Amino acid sequence: MKQYGAEFFGTFWLVLGGCGSAVLAAAFPGVGIGLLGVSLAFGLTVLTMAYAIGHISGCHLNPAVSIGLWAGGRFPAGQLLPYIAAQVLGGIVAGGVLYLIASGKAGFDVGAGFAANGYGAHSPGGYSLHAALLSEVVMTMMFLLIILGATDARAPQGFAPLPIGFALTLIHLITIPVTNTSVNPARSTGVAVYVGDWAMSQLWLFWLAPIVGALLGAVVYRLIAEPQPA
Amino acid sequence: MKQYGAEFFGTFWLVLGGCGSAVLAAAFPGVGIGLLGVSLAFGLTVLTMAYAIGHISGCHLNPAVSIGLWAGGRFPAGQLLPYIAAQVLGGIVAGGVLYLIASGKAGFDVGAGFAANGYGAHSPGGYSLHAALLSEVVMTMMFLLIILGATDARAPQGFAPLPIGFALTLIHLITIPVTNTSVNPARSTGVAVYVGDWAMSQLWLFWLAPIVGALLGAVVYRLIAEPQPA
Amino acid sequence: MKQYGAEFFGTFWLVLGGCGSAVLAAAFPGVGIGLLGVSLAFGLTVLTMAYAIGHISGCHLNPAVSIGLWAGGRFPAGQLLPYIAAQVLGGIVAGGVLYLIASGKAGFDVGAGFAANGYGAHSPGGYSLHAALLSEVVMTMMFLLIILGATDARAPQGFAPLPIGFALTLIHLITIPVTNTSVNPARSTGVAVYVGDWAMSQLWLFWLAPIVGALLGAVVYRLIAEPQPA
Amino acid sequence: MKQYGAEFFGTFWLVLGGCGSAVLAAAFPGVGIGLLGVSLAFGLTVLTMAYAIGHISGCHLNPAVSIGLWAGGRFPAGQLLPYIAAQVLGGIVAGGVLYLIASGKAGFDVGAGFAANGYGAHSPGGYSLHAALLSEVVMTMMFLLIILGATDARAPQGFAPLPIGFALTLIHLITIPVTNTSVNPARSTGVAVYVGDWAMSQLWLFWLAPIVGALLGAVVYRLIAEPQPA
Repeated sequence: MKQYGAEFFGTFWLVLGGCGSAVLAAAFPGVGIGLLGVSLAFGLTVLTMAYAIGHISGCHLNPAVSIGLWAGGRFPAGQLLPYIAAQVLGGIVAGGVLYLIASGKAGFDVGAGFAANGYGAHSPGGYSLHAALLSEVVMTMMFLLIILGATDARAPQGFAPLPIGFALTLIHLITIPVTNTSVNPARSTGVAVYVGDWAMSQLWLFWLAPIVGALLGAVVYRLIAEPQPA
Repeated sequence: MKQYGAEFFGTFWLVLGGCGSAVLAAAFPGVGIGLLGVSLAFGLTVLTMAYAIGHISGCHLNPAVSIGLWAGGRFPAGQLLPYIAAQVLGGIVAGGVLYLIASGKAGFDVGAGFAANGYGAHSPGGYSLHAALLSEVVMTMMFLLIILGATDARAPQGFAPLPIGFALTLIHLITIPVTNTSVNPARSTGVAVYVGDWAMSQLWLFWLAPIVGALLGAVVYRLIAEPQPA
Repeated sequence: MKQYGAEFFGTFWLVLGGCGSAVLAAAFPGVGIGLLGVSLAFGLTVLTMAYAIGHISGCHLNPAVSIGLWAGGRFPAGQLLPYIAAQVLGGIVAGGVLYLIASGKAGFDVGAGFAANGYGAHSPGGYSLHAALLSEVVMTMMFLLIILGATDARAPQGFAPLPIGFALTLIHLITIPVTNTSVNPARSTGVAVYVGDWAMSQLWLFWLAPIVGALLGAVVYRLIAEPQPA
Repeated sequence: MKQYGAEFFGTFWLVLGGCGSAVLAAAFPGVGIGLLGVSLAFGLTVLTMAYAIGHISGCHLNPAVSIGLWAGGRFPAGQLLPYIAAQVLGGIVAGGVLYLIASGKAGFDVGAGFAANGYGAHSPGGYSLHAALLSEVVMTMMFLLIILGATDARAPQGFAPLPIGFALTLIHLITIPVTNTSVNPARSTGVAVYVGDWAMSQLWLFWLAPIVGALLGAVVYRLIAEPQPA
């Protein structure tokens, strides 16, 4: 049971920290943290949690990561469902806490975005469905390649949270304008349920594309990695 | 005695570095470091000091952290009072040094903020008392969860200052607009005494909420962590 | 064969991440990541990949790096050609994927730059050919000195991806205004082929200068380093 | 001889990278890296070099650091003069290379600053001589405390370049508006000789204050550190 609690709090932190920085601080007048600060925030949620709970649950915080690790032979199929449930629940509770904080400011409007992911008319930069799909698939593919590589038994031990966290920062630096960056169905769901409307009707892409990308990442890593020691 | 000296200089650095970057550099015309730079500065004070004095005092630099570590079974009750005294003293001396430097510029006005924490009319973004309270409690809870996890005997050894320092950066990236971010009563006190007035009358929240959050963090970590090896 | 695949995907990531952040996010209205975000992105591609594939191919991702490592006695001459081919191919495929994503936004114009490197009229800040040449030679020289030093058997083990990745960030922080920063012929080629025109006719400098710089870096490191243990 | 070469190239990198980012990229129109980018650049020069040449020379790159390490009992007096000479020479050559690159842009004016350190009328934010003196003394004191602590035999091994490099970033985040931040006489000298005039006549402070601060830092660390194991 303990690892599900860890995944719950870890994903809670990812959504509260990443989406929270976007909603509360990105466009603060004159001194806002911008997309660079939001990118850093998302990555640091993973970096900090990977050191804090890595020894408890492995710190996936992301259904696509759990599925990619399963496809890469690193995670048992029987654990997929409870992990994903804990992640989605953690994301939704985080969205609720963020809603409570954000609505403490006069004029807050959840419909203005609430850091939800979108494409087409709801892409921050107006990118098409096809661009969004390609972006999310490729980014999640590379994310999994990095995760599988950095946690390989032959990689330096103890360092993995750094490249994995900074990979998420990097992915946001590239693609926030395209989709607001998901690569994580739990993160997308955690805020979409409060926005409703278009965010819910576009949510399918942010489940489909990250999972497809994660499976591709597992395939690519198997292709380029030597056979693992048992 | 040596560990109290270390806590004094460490908290001195946290307040001088974090609040100093906010007061001196955040809104510098055209090239100011903004809230992103201030967030980085706060985190780096902890990251640098944790490597510098971790082996002397454990580098708490924060009454809420000392209390949370006690609640998590990692710190003896008998040390709480001298640690907290050294932290608060270090914060206040840092505020004084910052005052001396900042007042070396014509037109300096300590009443303009001096990086003090506040809510309601004194929240940077105009967030209510309830939002401020929730924000400080949740952020300190997660801060302690990360500290307890990253210093767990099962976590990679030697790395803890990185996630702990970057957690403080992350917390600032999310919540400076809400309360100017405390999660640390010594940091709040260190500048409030120079601002006086509203900063002193709102100071209670920045003792209460971080301590409540720290206790919750200790409880949560006990729930999700396997029993520790002796 | 596996190490060529690793170099292909690694250089794919460097060009997609670095040039992608520049094309998609650098000048996003109001909250763009700017040259600081692009600098961070380039460095993080190397940091993340070095932990992910360092144990497979050494993670060069750059013809100048492969040549400099050969000159420093760390890489066999017979591997140079396939490594460089994999790197250039990875860069070009990344440019193509970036083109597909970027063109998903109405009004995209590859001729507006596409993060290609240039000098004179095509230097972002209007720097001359001589300044560009000097900048690229010196920056690649120092990059190789850092790579050779950080991977020296006497340097702390496991950390090398951090200084090497952050060195690339640093190099971009300094010289994006001069040449858009190359220090990597594969990165330059990967986007120049889509821009064509001036980007192709100036491409010679971004092969010549990085290679000369890399050779100088290998010479300098031999001069300042004690004889290596066998 | 080899360690002097390492100090020469290391300090060359510190001045070229730190001052270069300030001169070339800080105020680039619309997407400039600002004081945050410059702060990061200074810190990354030290972080990268400490991993690259730490095993050759210890990577001081700064006369105040060499003097502080001597005062802390970590460096022999007989090495002080050649180390300082190599550092100053490296800084001056870096200033020359930066001059050559920067003057490749039409309209370059070395008199506009060239990242020289100053106080009073030449402080970026108009800070007085007393504020500048206090700032440089306290910042160098804390820098040495961090260096001595992070390289203590009881601190985690291999990590020291991270807190030391990031300490320099932090110091710049706080004090660029005050003095343009020195804490390093070689860095100040390396650009002042090209600016001449006021930069040379104010240079005394950027030798005096960092050295006084470094000596204080060594005293403070002795006070708070337990007796070192032999």
